[in-house]
Amino acid sequence: MALDEFGLIERFFARGGAARADVVAGIGDDAALLRVPAGAELVAATDTLVAGVHFPADTAPEDIGHKALAVNLSDLAAMGAEPAWALLALTLPEADEEWLAAFARGFHALARRFGVALVGGDTTRGPLSITVQVLGRVPAGAALRRGGARPGDRVYVTGTLGDAALALEGLRGERRLARAALAALRRRLDRPEPRVAAGLALRGVATAAIDVSDGLLADVAHLAAAGGVAVTLWPESLPRSPEYLRAAPSAADWGAALTGGDDYELCFTLVPGMESALETLDCPATAIGVVEAGSGVHCRLGDGSEVHPARPGYTHFSGSTR
Amino acid sequence: MALDEFGLIERFFARGGAARADVVAGIGDDAALLRVPAGAELVAATDTLVAGVHFPADTAPEDIGHKALAVNLSDLAAMGAEPAWALLALTLPEADEEWLAAFARGFHALARRFGVALVGGDTTRGPLSITVQVLGRVPAGAALRRGGARPGDRVYVTGTLGDAALALEGLRGERRLARAALAALRRRLDRPEPRVAAGLALRGVATAAIDVSDGLLADVAHLAAAGGVAVTLWPESLPRSPEYLRAAPSAADWGAALTGGDDYELCFTLVPGMESALETLDCPATAIGVVEAGSGVHCRLGDGSEVHPARPGYTHFSGSTR
Repeated sequence: MALDEFGLIERFFARGGAARADVVAGIGDDAALLRVPAGAELVAATDTLVAGVHFPADTAPEDIGHKALAVNLSDLAAMGAEPAWALLALTLPEADEEWLAAFARGFHALARRFGVALVGGDTTRGPLSITVQVLGRVPAGAALRRGGARPGDRVYVTGTLGDAALALEGLRGERRLARAALAALRRRLDRPEPRVAAGLALRGVATAAIDVSDGLLADVAHLAAAGGVAVTLWPESLPRSPEYLRAAPSAADWGAALTGGDDYELCFTLVPGMESALETLDCPATAIGVVEAGSGVHCRLGDGSEVHPARPGYTHFSGSTR
Repeated sequence: MALDEFGLIERFFARGGAARADVVAGIGDDAALLRVPAGAELVAATDTLVAGVHFPADTAPEDIGHKALAVNLSDLAAMGAEPAWALLALTLPEADEEWLAAFARGFHALARRFGVALVGGDTTRGPLSITVQVLGRVPAGAALRRGGARPGDRVYVTGTLGDAALALEGLRGERRLARAALAALRRRLDRPEPRVAAGLALRGVATAAIDVSDGLLADVAHLAAAGGVAVTLWPESLPRSPEYLRAAPSAADWGAALTGGDDYELCFTLVPGMESALETLDCPATAIGVVEAGSGVHCRLGDGSEVHPARPGYTHFSGSTR
């Protein structure tokens, strides 16, 4: 087939996201021209998904389109930013129109839900890989940061953890799962839901925030390091979905929730007495630990014993693959 | 080796670009926080380089780092924008420290020259591919656009065209080149020089501008389509370097200059009588054609005959590879 780069962009990506009045020029010039309101800071993040690394090779293209944007919106959520614009760099082995139509459908549907205009991008030929850049805004000085946690703060996480990791264990044959259970868990892997509204609600409330993408333990370690504090987590308190609890009914089977990754929940800290702020969130949040003086992350069980999880969280260059 | 993602980022990318006072938070949080001055519009572009597609597999990593940023700065130049910030999404088959150090050296050196702070990014494991997003600013309403050319305008291009394409022909064995000639031409392929200063100087002067990345003919076709005009190009007038003229001494050997691609020069239009503005540029610019009523791009030789080049310019999904 001979659908060229310009045809591709025009056909699948020139329309479909949100329409925004602050886009002076979108797709179709050398760069996008965008209006940032006075008093706002610009918030910028980028994340890449590589086939076979960040999603199973058999993932539906509509889900890949969703996830490529969702993981980036999750970074904005962790800053308390309001999403505005995205650029899409799409590398494809071939210009498969059916694949592209489904990918664009997944991408645009999520973009519209969060008011994101797709304002630029690049399509290239190569092994399947998607890099999205998202841009958002936050009132100057109001962004949530990683480094603000102080001793005495409580640690919370939105939603539930570990479903995506359990799905991967099932797909790899490391855990026996009924077909329906795997399908339910896999939805969390394939279609993460960025916690944008929760991030906005936590502005001026949370002392620190980070999104949980590399596994809770690893991400809390970043939060602790950035704040110059220690965090003690309570593994038995980690929120787990009904699907997780059916697949791993033992209360001690919290490994996937603690280190699994691909959760895209928000982990944040509150000073004691601020618990009522949790009621303003559009999702559940669970207390999972406490900030202390010191450094590092410690895991303490209800009986007072400390556990040392073997896997400190996923990193791409430490030898593990997912 | 076990250099993990966070170690990688910290070691090679957390420092090295320009330091800027408008970076509230750079690498090290979920997203960058940036200050856009009042009265400015934000300019955003992204471009991907894939190994073996956008650069030969044997390209020096320092040159890859340079080129990955340069091709993006070229897009900002074509808008008349002042570069400010970049994000880097780097996909690597393995964490090779020597490769990374050289790549970062090339990237940072160019970033410092243009005052660009590297404020975020993502490193992932996979086939070698680099996506850069650049962000710049332009006074509101002052951006150079593709669509402003009007009948009677003259068409210009900065610098010289076709060196990179000749280098590729030499590397592929399609053209016999002496080793020194190939090395000189290849420098243009590997280390393109973004025309940022020329873009700034052309604000308020040029009626339209585009960067020449896909080949002059293809890019002028975009300029013509965006403006709803026709362009007649004079192939014999295309500016060619001494190296080009040594490798292809015939005046009629303008094919690489017309359709080769990877030039990263600026093509722009001026209303007649504005030629004196060319003296404010920091580089030569050559008149190469004229804007007319109608549509499409036509190539006319000095004897009045029209030529129809076989190759309309490089597109990734039309079956060609480079």
